Amino acid sequence: MTYSLMVSLGTRSYPIYIGCGLLTGRLCSDLVKSRKALVVTSEKIAPLYLESFLSGFEDNRPSTLILPDGESTKTLVGLNPIFDSFFKNKMGRDSMVLALGGGVLGDMVGFAAATYQRGIRWVQIPTTLLAQVDSSVGGKTGVNHICGKNMIGAFHQPDSVIIDIDVIKTLPRRELCAGIAEIIKYGLIGDEQLIKWIQDSSRLLIDKNENALSHVVKTSCAMKADIVSRDERETGLRELLNLGHTFGHAIETYSKHKNWLHGEAIAVGLSIASQISFHLGYLRQEEVNQIISILSSFGLPVKPPKGMQPSHFLDLMALDKKNRQGKTRFILLKKIGDAFVSEDLDQTLLVNCLRTACKS
Amino acid sequence: MTYSLMVSLGTRSYPIYIGCGLLTGRLCSDLVKSRKALVVTSEKIAPLYLESFLSGFEDNRPSTLILPDGESTKTLVGLNPIFDSFFKNKMGRDSMVLALGGGVLGDMVGFAAATYQRGIRWVQIPTTLLAQVDSSVGGKTGVNHICGKNMIGAFHQPDSVIIDIDVIKTLPRRELCAGIAEIIKYGLIGDEQLIKWIQDSSRLLIDKNENALSHVVKTSCAMKADIVSRDERETGLRELLNLGHTFGHAIETYSKHKNWLHGEAIAVGLSIASQISFHLGYLRQEEVNQIISILSSFGLPVKPPKGMQPSHFLDLMALDKKNRQGKTRFILLKKIGDAFVSEDLDQTLLVNCLRTACKS
Repeated sequence: MTYSLMVSLGTRSYPIYIGCGLLTGRLCSDLVKSRKALVVTSEKIAPLYLESFLSGFEDNRPSTLILPDGESTKTLVGLNPIFDSFFKNKMGRDSMVLALGGGVLGDMVGFAAATYQRGIRWVQIPTTLLAQVDSSVGGKTGVNHICGKNMIGAFHQPDSVIIDIDVIKTLPRRELCAGIAEIIKYGLIGDEQLIKWIQDSSRLLIDKNENALSHVVKTSCAMKADIVSRDERETGLRELLNLGHTFGHAIETYSKHKNWLHGEAIAVGLSIASQISFHLGYLRQEEVNQIISILSSFGLPVKPPKGMQPSHFLDLMALDKKNRQGKTRFILLKKIGDAFVSEDLDQTLLVNCLRTACKS
Repeated sequence: MTYSLMVSLGTRSYPIYIGCGLLTGRLCSDLVKSRKALVVTSEKIAPLYLESFLSGFEDNRPSTLILPDGESTKTLVGLNPIFDSFFKNKMGRDSMVLALGGGVLGDMVGFAAATYQRGIRWVQIPTTLLAQVDSSVGGKTGVNHICGKNMIGAFHQPDSVIIDIDVIKTLPRRELCAGIAEIIKYGLIGDEQLIKWIQDSSRLLIDKNENALSHVVKTSCAMKADIVSRDERETGLRELLNLGHTFGHAIETYSKHKNWLHGEAIAVGLSIASQISFHLGYLRQEEVNQIISILSSFGLPVKPPKGMQPSHFLDLMALDKKNRQGKTRFILLKKIGDAFVSEDLDQTLLVNCLRTACKS
């Protein structure tokens, strides 16, 4: 059965389809219709899914482009192969791009679609759990700059998002768990029940139980769709989705996007945000312990990379996109299931918490 | 006296200020208020205006960045100095960029502002007549790709546009006349009176008479503001502003953006579009002659570059952004002051007209 959710944004509203076997079905072909289309995928995903994906199109097969893998390709220059392919295929403003891959691929293809001829249509078909519950919904696209993650980009909503639960089943455990870090984030922000559910069902999730995976993906996407519908451009509510990300992005930039999966950096960020929330008198110690415990139960890290110091965090966070008038804004927790934006976090408290976090 | 016009786009509405001495006045300083700001200008403009421009800010002087000049820098890679400067100055989502320069600079700075942190505020302060009446109004930003002009970009409306008539007075005659090509375009599209006025006042315009310049700038900006307000994303009406541009862009790409000013390429495009409109039975021969005559009275070219053949036009126009389902769409004239979009221009007629145009 295919489940569908709407992201409500007036004329730019679009559906998120969630189900099994969607990748190889006719759904994509139906969306493309008679348009000129290009499928962009990665070296890792192509051998796994490209042929079966294309088979759904029968006589109307789109052109294809296979990109190298990895966050290190996510730069302005890394977009050139995509633009070159758009030109080679004489794509017009009425053409459509299909992004078949993880979060890095989706961010890059989406940004290329946002800027080619000032914007053409695109569809997201995320192939990692992380991308399914996070980057594929909400229209954030972009590339990294040496000074910071996702610093160059655009809001460009897709025509639709197609989430096939089957693809999660082939994910390595480490990638699965990195995705679960983002799902835990949703629970911490606004759904205490989800946290309890994940805690009780960690074994099912790790074992890739289809119903358990479907449940957490639907719940996460529903929360994100609701938040994006109410604050597309991140002027308020949507900022809460950055829980753990201020610290997480600093870790990713510090580690030059190597050895750390996004979800792993976010797990550390969630842990630091929890500690700060505790020291401000919001979270109770047992809630912090509960958060650390749930992250650890998925093998997720809760400590920054070796060698990373509070000063590294402070320097890198000075460029966070949420900053206003030079001040870093932090997403913190009043309690599990209730996040808020802090605009004037005490610097000493911050540094002390970072120092504790950085101790091995 | 400062004259102001509104581009009406709901929450993204903004004013265009037109007057003398605006560059050195307090208007820009008032717009920036207490925000962190960066002025981006070019090597050609900096010695002429930067110091007096900055003097308007008194104690709150913005940082500055001086870029090399020329259409050849208008590429994805050419954006890097702008992004680097944004980072160096720790610009946040609440910072403001001031683009002080011609069309190339405005397009690049606008695109950088559109994509840095997924969009920051910016102000256009165009320093050529062409930029004042064309690219500075309407929020089109972008860079060129080797395969085509302005092929990578975004719609990103400025906070305001500041047009100082004084700066036109220092323009070389060739640049002045290139700007007038775009003003003639407005007349041809929708204002027969403007065409008559330009014809009668060509001497005043060439002599940079302040009142004459103010009149044509206001009239052109008012028409563009009205069209952009009604069709921001170029889904219909706004396409008419591309009169002459399908051919003009092909000339610019063919000549690799060297030796041809944008307005000069557009002048040739207007001439070709007029010829086609005549052969379709719309324009009368005397109207075509009138158009050629008015362009020539400003020393504007009406013939493509030496060596350019109809096949060059056809290849380059195949990538025009207006194309739908692989078909090139042409803006043509029913009569002077009345343009329309042609979706199914007869290929033989097109090639014949191009052949005539390319004959030296």
